[in-house]
Amino acid sequence: MTDVTRLDLGSDIVDLTAAICDIHSVSGDEAELADAVEAALAGAAHLATIRDGNTVIARTDLGRDERVVLAGHLDTVPLTDPPNLPTRVESGPEGPELWGRGTVDMKGGVAVQLRLAHLLEAPNRDITFVFYDCEEVEAERNSLTRIGSTRPELLEGDFAVLLEPTRALVEGGCKGTLRAEVTTRGVAAHSGRPWMGENAIHAAAPILTRLAEYTPREVDVDGLLYREGMSAVGIEGGIATNVIPDSCTVSVNYRFAPDIDEAAAEAHVRELFDGFEVTITDSAGGARPGLDRPAALAFVEAIGGEVSAKQGWTDVARFSALGVPAVNFGPGDPLLAHKDDERCPLDQLRAAEQALLRWLGGESTAHAAPPE
Amino acid sequence: MTDVTRLDLGSDIVDLTAAICDIHSVSGDEAELADAVEAALAGAAHLATIRDGNTVIARTDLGRDERVVLAGHLDTVPLTDPPNLPTRVESGPEGPELWGRGTVDMKGGVAVQLRLAHLLEAPNRDITFVFYDCEEVEAERNSLTRIGSTRPELLEGDFAVLLEPTRALVEGGCKGTLRAEVTTRGVAAHSGRPWMGENAIHAAAPILTRLAEYTPREVDVDGLLYREGMSAVGIEGGIATNVIPDSCTVSVNYRFAPDIDEAAAEAHVRELFDGFEVTITDSAGGARPGLDRPAALAFVEAIGGEVSAKQGWTDVARFSALGVPAVNFGPGDPLLAHKDDERCPLDQLRAAEQALLRWLGGESTAHAAPPE
Repeated sequence: MTDVTRLDLGSDIVDLTAAICDIHSVSGDEAELADAVEAALAGAAHLATIRDGNTVIARTDLGRDERVVLAGHLDTVPLTDPPNLPTRVESGPEGPELWGRGTVDMKGGVAVQLRLAHLLEAPNRDITFVFYDCEEVEAERNSLTRIGSTRPELLEGDFAVLLEPTRALVEGGCKGTLRAEVTTRGVAAHSGRPWMGENAIHAAAPILTRLAEYTPREVDVDGLLYREGMSAVGIEGGIATNVIPDSCTVSVNYRFAPDIDEAAAEAHVRELFDGFEVTITDSAGGARPGLDRPAALAFVEAIGGEVSAKQGWTDVARFSALGVPAVNFGPGDPLLAHKDDERCPLDQLRAAEQALLRWLGGESTAHAAPPE
Repeated sequence: MTDVTRLDLGSDIVDLTAAICDIHSVSGDEAELADAVEAALAGAAHLATIRDGNTVIARTDLGRDERVVLAGHLDTVPLTDPPNLPTRVESGPEGPELWGRGTVDMKGGVAVQLRLAHLLEAPNRDITFVFYDCEEVEAERNSLTRIGSTRPELLEGDFAVLLEPTRALVEGGCKGTLRAEVTTRGVAAHSGRPWMGENAIHAAAPILTRLAEYTPREVDVDGLLYREGMSAVGIEGGIATNVIPDSCTVSVNYRFAPDIDEAAAEAHVRELFDGFEVTITDSAGGARPGLDRPAALAFVEAIGGEVSAKQGWTDVARFSALGVPAVNFGPGDPLLAHKDDERCPLDQLRAAEQALLRWLGGESTAHAAPPE
């Protein structure tokens, strides 16, 4: 490792977030940031640090009764053009905000993890910090998938917190997601003689009608309300402007509540599009919020505030699949993730840091009263 | 002009068609063939030859009562991969066929034009032979459009025959064609929270339903039956597999009978898609068959055989717009135009040549009895 960028974990959470955002780390290009994280943690005697690809895992081993996992991904989606970095602070409707790629998804969360790793030399629970790469791309490149399969013991714990943006409120579980292609077939012909063919786009009318008339379920799971969605996310058909199209494909994304599994979700989609050719292209199960588990209840009690259902799919489902109940909790508004105007209120960075410090038995530093 | 490929106009119609097909002339690349046509006609004392770009026009000027225009385009659509040239003769269900790009659309017709120009030193009507380029591409590149606008006198006549493929039967007039984009707008959102957006693909359901339920007109014009068509030829929508789409566009092609004009066709499309955003992207009027004109009647009588409506759009509409009644008559099955297995029965090449020779007062040569 040469020329590693230095991250000062003793600095304020806002400055640390900005410094992390300013190290570009679009998916697949996380080496510089992973090096910086590894180097920053190397000096901490209370942590054992493991490097696996561009994933860094740091663990306390204090023999506590409980172990919790705090996980966050190092990568971001691509920058805007011109680039929305370096970060800058601007005033917002409710106070100053940090602007730039990653401020929401999710380098604010990564900064909170690093601050906790630095400050919590003797936490009340053992902690595994996971900093992983390639979350914003296909599931097979996601390092949490790889490590969950090759070294699952590193992800074990009684409870996990994924520091994805939730406006520093607890969001439990997540919905599942399934993608299907619903296809019609026809017979090509010259459009001057359409009766010689069979129009596959016209044949797709009932597919769109069923989608337009679909009423999504709203499901209560462990006290949280999950709203489903059945959405066309793409449609494609046509050969040339003078040819009757011989096929038309509607791409459908079903977001399902965690009371059903992937197989049930698939059966529902196949039933909805009965009579059409349906190909499942991708699916991932959801995660129940697990708020009936003692570790989860203790977390919610310590953090306080509103608890709601996570409507998007997140890696909490990977922990759920490993038998580890998990919630989402991190700074930033998820609606601003990936957006050109991605930005995070400074207060949310501070609130997330303080809440987790409180839960894990650390001293509050940022808001400590000045010496008398 | 150097190294001009030599075309022997004294050869048999089949050999001449093969020779012309074997000179590649995909739209925009017609120079070699135009050079060859110009050179082949240069020796004919009864013709005045004009070159305009890659269009060649040759005219008799014998002071006849009538002038007819025989027109055909030199270009073809692209070859297949591997190329469907050079031509080859294979046996077919009803006799030998010439296979290869252009055999149908429309170098058989061009060969017939060249044979007539060669043989008819003293035709019973003055003739204008038009060999033009860029028919298989956008209308603005079509040389018939250009010459009709810059030198319309060259296209004047009492009657025109376009030698596009009709299986050597007379096809009168042509339908018009209009292309429109019918668009829905929505609001993008993450597909995990579809209620935050508005799905533009779902909103397109009524567009497809109206197309699927549409009953096209069948219209009698001057005794010929034109079947209309209203067809989706393309559909497009979607941003990403996890995003609610904010727009969806259906491309529609309306083929209308020549009893209505472009303005009426546009009004009909706008009425059909009332409530949606409609953009007309392209339109071209049809042509009435003109079978009530004396020149047309004389042609039909001389040629004989079945007369039917042309269902596709062809350049007869350009002659119609110049006030010249026109019909389609040429060798080859139009359903095989542009196809990978494009091929023309040798008998149709001979029949088209003989029929036109008969009409224009030439001696039949190909089928002449052998010397006794």
